[in-house]
Amino acid sequence: MKFDLVIRDGNVVTATEEVFCDIGIEGGTITAIGKKLPSGEREIDANGDYVFPGGIDAHTHIEQISSTGLMCADDFYTGTVSAAHGGTTTILSFAAQHKGDSLRAVLVDYHTRAKTKAVIDYGFHLIISDPTETVMKDELPELIRNGYTSFKVYMTYDALKLDDYQMLDVFALARKEGALTMIHAENHDLIRWLTDRLLAAGAVAPKFHAVSHPRLAESEATSRAISLAELVDAPCLIVHVSSEEGMEAIRRAQRRGLKVFAETCPQYLFLTADDLDQPDMQGAMCCCSPPPRDEASQEAIWRGLSDGTFQVLSSDHAPYRFDETGKLAQGEDPPFNKIANGVPGLEVRMPLLFSEGVLKGRLDLHRFVELTSTRPAQLYGMFPRKGSISVGADADLVIWDAHKTVTLGWEHLHDNVGYTPYAGRTIQGWPRTVLSRGRVVVDAGELLVEKGSGEFIPREKPSAADPLGREAAEVSLARRFGLEDLW
Amino acid sequence: MKFDLVIRDGNVVTATEEVFCDIGIEGGTITAIGKKLPSGEREIDANGDYVFPGGIDAHTHIEQISSTGLMCADDFYTGTVSAAHGGTTTILSFAAQHKGDSLRAVLVDYHTRAKTKAVIDYGFHLIISDPTETVMKDELPELIRNGYTSFKVYMTYDALKLDDYQMLDVFALARKEGALTMIHAENHDLIRWLTDRLLAAGAVAPKFHAVSHPRLAESEATSRAISLAELVDAPCLIVHVSSEEGMEAIRRAQRRGLKVFAETCPQYLFLTADDLDQPDMQGAMCCCSPPPRDEASQEAIWRGLSDGTFQVLSSDHAPYRFDETGKLAQGEDPPFNKIANGVPGLEVRMPLLFSEGVLKGRLDLHRFVELTSTRPAQLYGMFPRKGSISVGADADLVIWDAHKTVTLGWEHLHDNVGYTPYAGRTIQGWPRTVLSRGRVVVDAGELLVEKGSGEFIPREKPSAADPLGREAAEVSLARRFGLEDLW
Amino acid sequence: MKFDLVIRDGNVVTATEEVFCDIGIEGGTITAIGKKLPSGEREIDANGDYVFPGGIDAHTHIEQISSTGLMCADDFYTGTVSAAHGGTTTILSFAAQHKGDSLRAVLVDYHTRAKTKAVIDYGFHLIISDPTETVMKDELPELIRNGYTSFKVYMTYDALKLDDYQMLDVFALARKEGALTMIHAENHDLIRWLTDRLLAAGAVAPKFHAVSHPRLAESEATSRAISLAELVDAPCLIVHVSSEEGMEAIRRAQRRGLKVFAETCPQYLFLTADDLDQPDMQGAMCCCSPPPRDEASQEAIWRGLSDGTFQVLSSDHAPYRFDETGKLAQGEDPPFNKIANGVPGLEVRMPLLFSEGVLKGRLDLHRFVELTSTRPAQLYGMFPRKGSISVGADADLVIWDAHKTVTLGWEHLHDNVGYTPYAGRTIQGWPRTVLSRGRVVVDAGELLVEKGSGEFIPREKPSAADPLGREAAEVSLARRFGLEDLW
Amino acid sequence: MKFDLVIRDGNVVTATEEVFCDIGIEGGTITAIGKKLPSGEREIDANGDYVFPGGIDAHTHIEQISSTGLMCADDFYTGTVSAAHGGTTTILSFAAQHKGDSLRAVLVDYHTRAKTKAVIDYGFHLIISDPTETVMKDELPELIRNGYTSFKVYMTYDALKLDDYQMLDVFALARKEGALTMIHAENHDLIRWLTDRLLAAGAVAPKFHAVSHPRLAESEATSRAISLAELVDAPCLIVHVSSEEGMEAIRRAQRRGLKVFAETCPQYLFLTADDLDQPDMQGAMCCCSPPPRDEASQEAIWRGLSDGTFQVLSSDHAPYRFDETGKLAQGEDPPFNKIANGVPGLEVRMPLLFSEGVLKGRLDLHRFVELTSTRPAQLYGMFPRKGSISVGADADLVIWDAHKTVTLGWEHLHDNVGYTPYAGRTIQGWPRTVLSRGRVVVDAGELLVEKGSGEFIPREKPSAADPLGREAAEVSLARRFGLEDLW
Repeated sequence: MKFDLVIRDGNVVTATEEVFCDIGIEGGTITAIGKKLPSGEREIDANGDYVFPGGIDAHTHIEQISSTGLMCADDFYTGTVSAAHGGTTTILSFAAQHKGDSLRAVLVDYHTRAKTKAVIDYGFHLIISDPTETVMKDELPELIRNGYTSFKVYMTYDALKLDDYQMLDVFALARKEGALTMIHAENHDLIRWLTDRLLAAGAVAPKFHAVSHPRLAESEATSRAISLAELVDAPCLIVHVSSEEGMEAIRRAQRRGLKVFAETCPQYLFLTADDLDQPDMQGAMCCCSPPPRDEASQEAIWRGLSDGTFQVLSSDHAPYRFDETGKLAQGEDPPFNKIANGVPGLEVRMPLLFSEGVLKGRLDLHRFVELTSTRPAQLYGMFPRKGSISVGADADLVIWDAHKTVTLGWEHLHDNVGYTPYAGRTIQGWPRTVLSRGRVVVDAGELLVEKGSGEFIPREKPSAADPLGREAAEVSLARRFGLEDLW
Repeated sequence: MKFDLVIRDGNVVTATEEVFCDIGIEGGTITAIGKKLPSGEREIDANGDYVFPGGIDAHTHIEQISSTGLMCADDFYTGTVSAAHGGTTTILSFAAQHKGDSLRAVLVDYHTRAKTKAVIDYGFHLIISDPTETVMKDELPELIRNGYTSFKVYMTYDALKLDDYQMLDVFALARKEGALTMIHAENHDLIRWLTDRLLAAGAVAPKFHAVSHPRLAESEATSRAISLAELVDAPCLIVHVSSEEGMEAIRRAQRRGLKVFAETCPQYLFLTADDLDQPDMQGAMCCCSPPPRDEASQEAIWRGLSDGTFQVLSSDHAPYRFDETGKLAQGEDPPFNKIANGVPGLEVRMPLLFSEGVLKGRLDLHRFVELTSTRPAQLYGMFPRKGSISVGADADLVIWDAHKTVTLGWEHLHDNVGYTPYAGRTIQGWPRTVLSRGRVVVDAGELLVEKGSGEFIPREKPSAADPLGREAAEVSLARRFGLEDLW
Repeated sequence: MKFDLVIRDGNVVTATEEVFCDIGIEGGTITAIGKKLPSGEREIDANGDYVFPGGIDAHTHIEQISSTGLMCADDFYTGTVSAAHGGTTTILSFAAQHKGDSLRAVLVDYHTRAKTKAVIDYGFHLIISDPTETVMKDELPELIRNGYTSFKVYMTYDALKLDDYQMLDVFALARKEGALTMIHAENHDLIRWLTDRLLAAGAVAPKFHAVSHPRLAESEATSRAISLAELVDAPCLIVHVSSEEGMEAIRRAQRRGLKVFAETCPQYLFLTADDLDQPDMQGAMCCCSPPPRDEASQEAIWRGLSDGTFQVLSSDHAPYRFDETGKLAQGEDPPFNKIANGVPGLEVRMPLLFSEGVLKGRLDLHRFVELTSTRPAQLYGMFPRKGSISVGADADLVIWDAHKTVTLGWEHLHDNVGYTPYAGRTIQGWPRTVLSRGRVVVDAGELLVEKGSGEFIPREKPSAADPLGREAAEVSLARRFGLEDLW
Repeated sequence: MKFDLVIRDGNVVTATEEVFCDIGIEGGTITAIGKKLPSGEREIDANGDYVFPGGIDAHTHIEQISSTGLMCADDFYTGTVSAAHGGTTTILSFAAQHKGDSLRAVLVDYHTRAKTKAVIDYGFHLIISDPTETVMKDELPELIRNGYTSFKVYMTYDALKLDDYQMLDVFALARKEGALTMIHAENHDLIRWLTDRLLAAGAVAPKFHAVSHPRLAESEATSRAISLAELVDAPCLIVHVSSEEGMEAIRRAQRRGLKVFAETCPQYLFLTADDLDQPDMQGAMCCCSPPPRDEASQEAIWRGLSDGTFQVLSSDHAPYRFDETGKLAQGEDPPFNKIANGVPGLEVRMPLLFSEGVLKGRLDLHRFVELTSTRPAQLYGMFPRKGSISVGADADLVIWDAHKTVTLGWEHLHDNVGYTPYAGRTIQGWPRTVLSRGRVVVDAGELLVEKGSGEFIPREKPSAADPLGREAAEVSLARRFGLEDLW
């Protein structure tokens, strides 16, 4: 029993426990947790500060190229550096298929982007926009077995949208192969219809983006996705839920015992549609889909974080600069539907939740850990390697200065976006030291590791991917009519 | 005060009252209700039997030609004769637009079919399958004003299906012009997907029709239609609801105070999916969409009739003979998805509900009247001319022999279908005398009026078409952002 | 066919229809409804005004003596005169048993009070406060058969309260004999506990009455009463519901199909707890139990009137003068728990609902008629003699001036209370002519009948008293264990 | 870092993690968890078996004397020995106040009973049956501070029952002092009423106990208790929930965000009312309150364990021998209401849940740990000292033989009851070695510690005792009316 590194005297907080103790690390892995552990080659005195499992940001867009050819402002270097400064030690990013793409080729591409730049660990969700027979029968089953055990599908956006038929194909495959399907749930036609009416009325300002993506678009699509998933008994996870109306569809399913999981993001806790109503196109900085709603929605989302409706808090970091490379790529003064969608938030995700959630009494420490780390690790097949402070886990740890006061501003952040929607907000609590596999990535605000030192994490079958084993009525009927296996 | 006709000593039953009295009729209209009315030129002694408002069958397919060119087995003569024998004095039938059709031309056509044949009164719902700009801006607004104040849209069937965008157009128009939208709510892709899987598995028998149209297809589409209607604050009426799952989506909306109405049909009270599982393609006779479910669903539908979830019981009479002119038009042994959809039921609708609903204690007499006559009249803009026994109303009346026992068989019915799915069932209660505008249409099983003596009923604004005046959240937001009128 | 009286050219409104016609009356009964009826000995030209069924106020305290010996300010003369001026032609009042009283003796007493004074028809609910064996086995069954087919029990007030055991006795009897149980549902201990805490804190002002009777007291007791009724499958009617919390318990039961009915009163639509917060004890004028709540509750109650949660709008007229004979009988400055409970409202009940409900678009005319007349008649066993404009019904009619504007003030009312809580409110619509059994009781604000000309109405089995026929689980278990009849 | 004892190579399972590692123990406490820990003075090879936190049975009746003077069959020796053999290392037992008792005296008494006999650790819940002023103002506040941080109140049983007023007193005190109130929720009057009717009908057999305690008695009282607790914003825990009806009241509260917790017991998972229907009074062995229900209820309870409605699985071990010292103390052939209430189950609690819950796929391992150990420890203020395998926790551990098959029979158990209701049932999984504070209490079925070696555990403020901070509407109203502090 000897240690490369010992974290001394931490208030070690997990999803369940809070323990004052030491953590012994060897070869990047936690090998002992105890009182007065023997010395390590190196020691860090946590000095009674909280030690959390390193954050997992399960929804980030990094160095991703959009269907219109737009490149994200953050590459795997700036993205992971920013994440690390905010306490996140693993990101899941998207490898996005465009129509016609081979999934394997897409992955080769994204691996190339990440490998030499990432400073923390990472994995990929696939985005399936073109579920051809090759993709579905050949590529995807193999890729799932190779550790890409989750994928996202879109119910909106012309270039990405699957129809209900294709979604059923995806759900059936996910169920069969043990993968988890993430869903961007907004009704495409409803958004198109409103957009057409708005543009026709000359309502082109960024704020009308919020009008064009109503809650009903979200709740309808959420409800529909759940019905499709239920038919084939496939679990699903609804990403970036923004409203009580969306939550209600999810809760209804959860109460019926369906395996429906849900994620929300800081923008739905801290922004409202009014943030899109600013002079000089600046509202564009807060344009994302679904859009922020209102204060009542924020309160509803907080309740959902506390009552278990949500399992995951991600950033949905979608970094676009407020210029012609990003938000304004389609013109200086584009109508709302030509503004690049997304807000940045990778670095502030955990500090915002700690300050406004834990310190304001909305969540306890354990729920904070669950939402930012443990549950994403479980749901996406990385637990207990990630998301856990336990023997055998990767030594991904954040020592947290719970007293530090920070007034947010982009100039103190490490992404490449040029602004933060949370500028000016004063919060309390910030990571002091961040470790990834035992390496000190960030200490006292300083980056201490090499570019490219992050590793790819192939993922196991997500805990969330287990079907319920409960058949839809007509599947049972088929069985009664002699048909053993419908899919 | 003199009467052409007096109905003497009836137990006159309306949606609210039951009164022993006489009814005086002049010029086809009820002009007095009273004790010991003066003599009329003619008198009918009701002899204490129930007198109900004549039935309104608000959902029938008569002399309708399908998108594949298939003609219904009943024309406006056999259809209305059959209806009249069953106590129905008004039918609403469909004038079906096929892609490319002008609505006005379609109506000219259907009027021609009906005018010389109908023996009772009739009106038309339009079926909108091609909402072109001409249709939406020019034809439909005018037609609504001319008395075609309701239309049906389909969410499934390749040739008829509207997408969500088009449905929003229709709802917005209906709201603006004061019409009511009826919805065939089943998810098209879900049905296609299951059908493809079933056919691929060689599961082609009629019984697999029931598997291919699951409750989830119905509940999903119902829920979606309601969301779309809610966005524009347009009332809607979900036709032929078959399952508790569909009802649940409707109830949820009703509890929230939305204007969502619902219809069900005898096939969902008396048939199950097992009726599709018969030798020699005979199951085809019970193929309709949505399909019959199971006994638990039947009980659920009965509850919905009694608790107010449903306002309307229609037949959805869709007459196809069990031969090459109908059910088997696409081959002698077609796969389930090539069987013409629909079951007959125009004549047995009221007797079945009376016998199994009223006499078995599931509904009282007033609810029976509401479901078969009063509420359809109100919802579709014919009240109090139709659906009412009150002064000024058309003298559409049924004198009901509540004691007569009938064993159902097609040979005793008057449609042109050649079978009835309810054959062999013994029920109690049957119309004795049926009057339409004071004319005795049927008496003691004999038809007493001329072909073509029925009249077209132009309809007022349906009571159901009044919007709620409650704005969706984002419509309010648009208003707050300065946009007064979004549609 | 000759008439004592013909009402000419009315817009006759019932729960279902609105018809322009005449009404022929003979011997106090409607004998014909028609166009251009023959002349009557007397005629009243309705001139196109609405003709409603005379109002039924199903919850009034008239000439009632409280357990502390306090006599109501209105006797059967002032009470019925006031009712008639407001459009009400039948009242149901309470014959209140005090501990030790024989029910028969109580009724003799109340009949004596009413017989020589009432100007409109009346019936009695019994109040059961002492369900002795004699009462339960001997008196009550006979009285029910004699037309006292409903009774009220209290869950609070020291002198009146039944415990749960006694309530089960009452429900079981009501079920067996076909009577309807009305329930004052508030949790006694909860109110006592709060009252003790409030008094101990010196919080004695009238406004603290509202604090001492919280919604939880109402919703708890409502929920409990429903459970007790469910055990023995007895219908029940919750009187004077004040809050959404109480409604929620009722709706839950209604959704489960239980026979639970509900009444609310004008004070819950137009007053709030703030009306109890006035200088110089004046808040005492608005002290009633349950107390008025807040504006959100008012909106909830309106929704409940429109969505069918409520079947009955009564006044709960409880007339106490603001002096030592009434509100202040226990001292000039009594603590809130010593103030006589109740507010007047008999005369303004229908005008308030018409003006604020119908004219403001919250209810249609038919719902107005249902709530004020038809449904009370049905639920309490007087239909169709009362509550109906149909042949054979009593000619109890109100011709309504829908245009008259009235600013409410006690000086224009006809009760003996000395104030109205609605003073200063301007409303539109007031009865023009009020008929009871064909007699013109009030015309143009003038009383035209003799004292004592009202009649007692023995009541049939209430429609609401039919049990559901659904057994509680353990009753079925008892049956399975061989016990056929548990009560 | 030296260890008294090292558990080697366990599959250590907590509420969140499953880790293959060693556990180092010093002075009865876990001081390290790690891979290849240094040797301890003593070592136990877990050999890959599961290591769970020692079970906590939070609801046991041991050496308790009833209000009728009946002594439980198990004293603190047989009770704790039996518990330990089943994997339980801490029990919470009741110190029961009878009317007139001083709480302090009661505790002295129970401490005396336990101190010299218990072989595992124990704590006491108080039973409050006589909340006198001395008890409420003097004794209870001090006792809460001394570690008796929870108490149970009864809503039924003549000798124990509190009325609603007293319950409010208790809730208000619990809230103020930071204690948790446990509730036996059954409606007393409802049970009395049914009992009287049953006895009058001669239905005296044990099976009628199940009829006399219906679900409605449970759901009503549960709902009422929650309303009372809500008024004062006090958390509560409903013990021994038996039915979906009871669960539904709990879920409704949980969905509204109230702090309502719930416990169930093996008898509601494995017995039904039919187990009371046995020859020769043997049904008496399964008489407990609430009684077991039916198979649908069992399934509902399983769902509640899995979906989070329940936090705690306890035994409610109430040991009465089937003879004149116990079940039949009031006669050889007593009517059902004279049979001592309760079933034994202390020893089989964890094995039953493991075999039928975990191995049958209804619960995962972590939920098993939560329900049997972690959540009780948290809710009752013993966490993380108990209920946790973490550094600093008591070394209360169970090494579990997941493969051992056992056919249950009382002769293999260690309690003093003489029968088990689960006899004949074959289950899989049984504790191999059980440690309490590092001491091997049981190994391979053999007891290895001294009588009296268990310790009393004074408890902290339960996590469950934190109020919500949400005021009832009328409390806010009181504040608005100027009354700062109502209790």
